[in-house]
Amino acid sequence: MNINFLLSIFAPKDKKFLPLLEETSDIMVKAASMLDELFTLDNRQKAVDCCKRIKAEESRGDKVTGLIHKALYENFITPFDREDIDALADEMDDCIDAINRAAQKVLLYSPRRHADCSVAMIAIIKQGIEQVHGAIKGLRELKKSDPKLRQYYREIKRLEEEGDVLYEKAIMALFREETDTIELIKQKEIIQELEKTVNRVNKIGKILKTIFIKYA
Amino acid sequence: MNINFLLSIFAPKDKKFLPLLEETSDIMVKAASMLDELFTLDNRQKAVDCCKRIKAEESRGDKVTGLIHKALYENFITPFDREDIDALADEMDDCIDAINRAAQKVLLYSPRRHADCSVAMIAIIKQGIEQVHGAIKGLRELKKSDPKLRQYYREIKRLEEEGDVLYEKAIMALFREETDTIELIKQKEIIQELEKTVNRVNKIGKILKTIFIKYA
Amino acid sequence: MNINFLLSIFAPKDKKFLPLLEETSDIMVKAASMLDELFTLDNRQKAVDCCKRIKAEESRGDKVTGLIHKALYENFITPFDREDIDALADEMDDCIDAINRAAQKVLLYSPRRHADCSVAMIAIIKQGIEQVHGAIKGLRELKKSDPKLRQYYREIKRLEEEGDVLYEKAIMALFREETDTIELIKQKEIIQELEKTVNRVNKIGKILKTIFIKYA
Repeated sequence: MNINFLLSIFAPKDKKFLPLLEETSDIMVKAASMLDELFTLDNRQKAVDCCKRIKAEESRGDKVTGLIHKALYENFITPFDREDIDALADEMDDCIDAINRAAQKVLLYSPRRHADCSVAMIAIIKQGIEQVHGAIKGLRELKKSDPKLRQYYREIKRLEEEGDVLYEKAIMALFREETDTIELIKQKEIIQELEKTVNRVNKIGKILKTIFIKYA
Repeated sequence: MNINFLLSIFAPKDKKFLPLLEETSDIMVKAASMLDELFTLDNRQKAVDCCKRIKAEESRGDKVTGLIHKALYENFITPFDREDIDALADEMDDCIDAINRAAQKVLLYSPRRHADCSVAMIAIIKQGIEQVHGAIKGLRELKKSDPKLRQYYREIKRLEEEGDVLYEKAIMALFREETDTIELIKQKEIIQELEKTVNRVNKIGKILKTIFIKYA
Repeated sequence: MNINFLLSIFAPKDKKFLPLLEETSDIMVKAASMLDELFTLDNRQKAVDCCKRIKAEESRGDKVTGLIHKALYENFITPFDREDIDALADEMDDCIDAINRAAQKVLLYSPRRHADCSVAMIAIIKQGIEQVHGAIKGLRELKKSDPKLRQYYREIKRLEEEGDVLYEKAIMALFREETDTIELIKQKEIIQELEKTVNRVNKIGKILKTIFIKYA
């Protein structure tokens, strides 16, 4: 039985942390959707603009994460364990950073083409982030034991496994088919950034699982 | 003087955390041994099977780490500082992840050959993990000041330095001798994953040192 | 209002944490200056010596970080929030590690030449670390609200953005101009390590910002 939990019984409905966490998951949704867009653009200027918008989301993510840290410092009472709020905020921030890095590499390297699997991996990232988004909203009702909550992190885990298979396919196809070494290096690094992003989403899933197990 | 420590004086012999930490170090030993095996296999199907077994250990590691986090939440009293249990569990989990990633790259890339130094680096990883295993068992007797405990992290540190030298040799030989660029990329990334694994073991050693300095 | 803060009101002038943090930022300054030197050396033996000196600073950094963790354990009263001291020490240690890794890669790969942008990125790293150094000293006067403190992390943020632009230029020039693939791989990885170092400095800036917002 944790002291934060005891305190939270007396807590009024949280009006600080949940809105900030929701804002962060909102940024994740937007950034993932822009990353998806980026992979469809074949116009350099549009790609530059798209990356700028992703970068702007990343800066906004930094700010909101800063506000969460500040709020953690200023408030004794939190809607759930402070370490979990802290871990959740940091992992979501890292996930947005990973999306930004993937986008940056697409722009920097401008590979001749994108592997089909890359596009499929972004679909996985988007779906995973949708689950995170739903789960974060679900934190408002944390006290009621709700089987839906469990669905979120199970689906995230399933998506990560699907992403793993896609990553393997993408890398093996690349080494089998791409004869231009420079092009291979470029595409390989982009695929690897996407795989890191999938892993980041899964890490958020693990923290959500911890929170749900504790409270739901 | 930390409050966890004061509480631990009254703690009954721990039956939760130490068995879970031991189970994690057990998984490390098994995964490292399978990684070693993987480097000797020249049959594709056997390599696939071996990687599946490593992946299964990694999933098991995830579960045990989850149980440790849950136990940390549910128990006020811990056999030693909660932050150290947390850090130890996370680092061991990361080390198992690193072994899994190295194995995955061997399978994905199927390089034509393995550098001699790679095999030597795995021997270093195995020895380092044996030390971790011994040290984790040693945590049961933490209160007695025991010079053996110090031996564990000193040996881990020594092994990491040896691993560094091997890594340098491996990379320099690769750039000197490998004329096929694609093959060079493959082997380089595998060697780099092994080096990261060595570093992970060393990070565990640092946490063990902190714990020993505090309590032994 | 955090309990550490309440306790710190009664704290005598800190004689433990601030000197150790200052020692760490001192190591950062030295390591960055040696990294700068390394990029000017064209003699192999001198480069080997320079890397050894950087490695020695890295080991010294490890030790001081260990002392900070030990001091955190032994003292209830800290000059500011314990989590922030912990995060600051760890990030500074990671930054020194990043410098060491960049230096190691220069030695291991011995690229034929260094991109102009690499040298400019090291200048950015050095300037960023100077700001960290100033800010850490500024922690002594944390209670007085001082606009100078804000300058430190704003300048670190500005330098990171400048570093980003340089990184992009360096990578794009490399892919445009370098026709030798092996050489491209070598220079790319060195530039990427420098970029990681710039990011590490910026992470320290974020922690400093958190501290300043809390107390200044």
